[in-house]
Amino acid sequence: MAETTAGLPPRETIFTVDPVPLKYGHGALAELGADAKAMGMTRVALFTDRTVAALPCLATARESLRAAGLDVVVYDAVKVEPTDRSFAEAAAFAQEAKVDGFVSIGGGSVMDTAKAANLLSTWPDDLLAYVNAPIGQAKPVPGPLKPHIACPTTSGTGSETTGVAIFDLTDRQLKTGISNKLLKPRLAVVDPTTTYTLPAGVVAATGFDVLTHAIESYTARLFTTRDRPAAPHLRPPYQGANPWSDGGALEAIRLGGRYLERAVADPSDHEAHDFLTFAATLAGMSFGNAGVHIPHAMSYAVAGLNHEYRARGYESAPGGMVPHGISVVVNAPAAFRFTAEADPERHLTAAAALGADVHDAGPAEAGEVLAGRLAEMMKATGIPNGLSEIGYSDTDIPALVKSAWPQQRLLVQAPKPVSEDDLADLFRAAMRYW
Amino acid sequence: MAETTAGLPPRETIFTVDPVPLKYGHGALAELGADAKAMGMTRVALFTDRTVAALPCLATARESLRAAGLDVVVYDAVKVEPTDRSFAEAAAFAQEAKVDGFVSIGGGSVMDTAKAANLLSTWPDDLLAYVNAPIGQAKPVPGPLKPHIACPTTSGTGSETTGVAIFDLTDRQLKTGISNKLLKPRLAVVDPTTTYTLPAGVVAATGFDVLTHAIESYTARLFTTRDRPAAPHLRPPYQGANPWSDGGALEAIRLGGRYLERAVADPSDHEAHDFLTFAATLAGMSFGNAGVHIPHAMSYAVAGLNHEYRARGYESAPGGMVPHGISVVVNAPAAFRFTAEADPERHLTAAAALGADVHDAGPAEAGEVLAGRLAEMMKATGIPNGLSEIGYSDTDIPALVKSAWPQQRLLVQAPKPVSEDDLADLFRAAMRYW
Repeated sequence: MAETTAGLPPRETIFTVDPVPLKYGHGALAELGADAKAMGMTRVALFTDRTVAALPCLATARESLRAAGLDVVVYDAVKVEPTDRSFAEAAAFAQEAKVDGFVSIGGGSVMDTAKAANLLSTWPDDLLAYVNAPIGQAKPVPGPLKPHIACPTTSGTGSETTGVAIFDLTDRQLKTGISNKLLKPRLAVVDPTTTYTLPAGVVAATGFDVLTHAIESYTARLFTTRDRPAAPHLRPPYQGANPWSDGGALEAIRLGGRYLERAVADPSDHEAHDFLTFAATLAGMSFGNAGVHIPHAMSYAVAGLNHEYRARGYESAPGGMVPHGISVVVNAPAAFRFTAEADPERHLTAAAALGADVHDAGPAEAGEVLAGRLAEMMKATGIPNGLSEIGYSDTDIPALVKSAWPQQRLLVQAPKPVSEDDLADLFRAAMRYW
Repeated sequence: MAETTAGLPPRETIFTVDPVPLKYGHGALAELGADAKAMGMTRVALFTDRTVAALPCLATARESLRAAGLDVVVYDAVKVEPTDRSFAEAAAFAQEAKVDGFVSIGGGSVMDTAKAANLLSTWPDDLLAYVNAPIGQAKPVPGPLKPHIACPTTSGTGSETTGVAIFDLTDRQLKTGISNKLLKPRLAVVDPTTTYTLPAGVVAATGFDVLTHAIESYTARLFTTRDRPAAPHLRPPYQGANPWSDGGALEAIRLGGRYLERAVADPSDHEAHDFLTFAATLAGMSFGNAGVHIPHAMSYAVAGLNHEYRARGYESAPGGMVPHGISVVVNAPAAFRFTAEADPERHLTAAAALGADVHDAGPAEAGEVLAGRLAEMMKATGIPNGLSEIGYSDTDIPALVKSAWPQQRLLVQAPKPVSEDDLADLFRAAMRYW
């Protein structure tokens, strides 16, 4: 789908697809024992957090593992928004417990912590050794990890489908992560009934994480705009938009556009929750393949500099925080207004999939139509009206830019170059939407 | 997405997804050596047929494998439309050559023969031992096979993504197959440039195989209409339509509707060939997950009872034959007119994705709209006008029904029950379309 142009360095012509196998549906957690046993697990570290530990889904999982004859040791000390320290503690637990497999049940924090504990207990080293340069030493993962079955309980992060584990590097006050395909779970088990009891605020925040994953994947730079790698194994995990990620992303946008508002409005609307949960996994497969860009790059600053915000549905978080989905979507309308000129057709297609009326929209309106539809959905579901409602003002912009700028791993995935000045403009534009 | 109804046996609520990893793009075959080496291969059986053996793509592949330091032994005696005997010969070759991996480059016959040779040389037994009952003994595959990289050179079968190998059981004059997830290739490598030199007749025939894979997957019975299996490992490979297969199938239908006629009309329209090739793999992923139904079930009879037909683009086939894609699509308009009443909305959605104007169509027109659009595309691309143009007449109907009826594995995937009388009506309706 791309030809080499004489005189220029050769461009990428290839993409790869290697999704995590998936089991989806009502009752899927009750089959965990059979799945873990089939992978050869005998002693399982069951990772969760204190909230999920009290829910019936955890009892179901535990019972299924035990009924299959497996030893189960529970680790429920996962920290929401994990840190380098919380990853290390989880790894120490796994090493001491001498487990030969992992099952994680919870949100992104739980699944990411299980990935990190698996890595650091299987191939012990400092966490920073495995973090990308310049923050870390970019050491390759030496070999395969132990099997890990990841079971999301919120329709959000898509972590069950990716080889990425995100954490706060406490000393340096920044959010970063490890990204390696060997970190991918061996199986994703998605039971949508786990989302039926989530507070509406959590459904909204995680639902917008899904939608931004999908829209950012679909509007990311094309895989054919990258230089061809010197060798196949040097192809990056985030390859840019391609026909495979496009299909999944558009389907996830369609499902999100149709079901997100319904799921937030009515906990008993099981159809809406089921499809939103499936959209989360589909969007995870797409963004894990294509990559996300500006809204996610900005989100690390938004979440990292404010730990006092009290979000609806997250009242139990000690001291407050900006939930991940909110920290992303508050940037999204501004970001898509900025990126639309790079590929108006894709922005219009995304807007149409999201449910916007695009019949009278030309290329010049593409960014506005997409941003407008997103803002309409944000307003309808109680998302804060931009950064100002989270507590930021124009005086915070230099600090936000300084914190977001190092996220080059994501910024280079945007469909056009992003300068520090652009970032300042974007944070300014994200202050208020209606 | 389905609830148990009191008093009835519990229905399936779960589906699984486990696609073959994919590498797609111009130049992908030149990376085969790196991929084979990464899987631990040292001595490779390179499977192909005599036609492909003479093409530059085979030289590229061979060179890449050798440059990576691997021993390569070529098997180019694959029979187009393989038989139990040709499978056994290929297995004997692989066993004697003491290979530790397989690379197959060609159409469905080549990839299926490599799967069978891998199985029968790794776990030696009679081929029929592994064939489903009642035709065979339904013996489970004892364990993992050797790694196999499958590289399609026609945009057709999707065999690179499935665990199915189809063959003619010569003694009993019927087409059957082995189906087991352990037969799945370890990697599918799809280089669309291999399709640029195909004769227009081959592009048309294989392109309609793609389209019927996708439309049959999308209109197959829903996974929630099956009984829940007694244990997770008893879930069948063909699960019925589900949200994952739906997304891929619809995208493949859209791409086929947009690019098939262009690719047949103009060999130099590389964009059309590229997207049609991608659609083939996507449709393969979907039908390998959801299953196909009536048009494919009928096709085995259509191809099995006529070996004299001389199709455009297949002039080199000794004595003639009905190419697989043609043997399927000639049944498709009749089949979708029959199935539409079971789920008019899905048939209309498929028709719209294929490019039909559905604005004025109600549920009662769903079958007609989809069948009409298919027939229009068949006519435009030189496909025979129904079974009569292949050489069948009404007097052949009893024999066709007798040959198709044993394909219960596929017939049960239809969205409504199919009787022997229905099959007779369907073959009658498939005689002529315009």
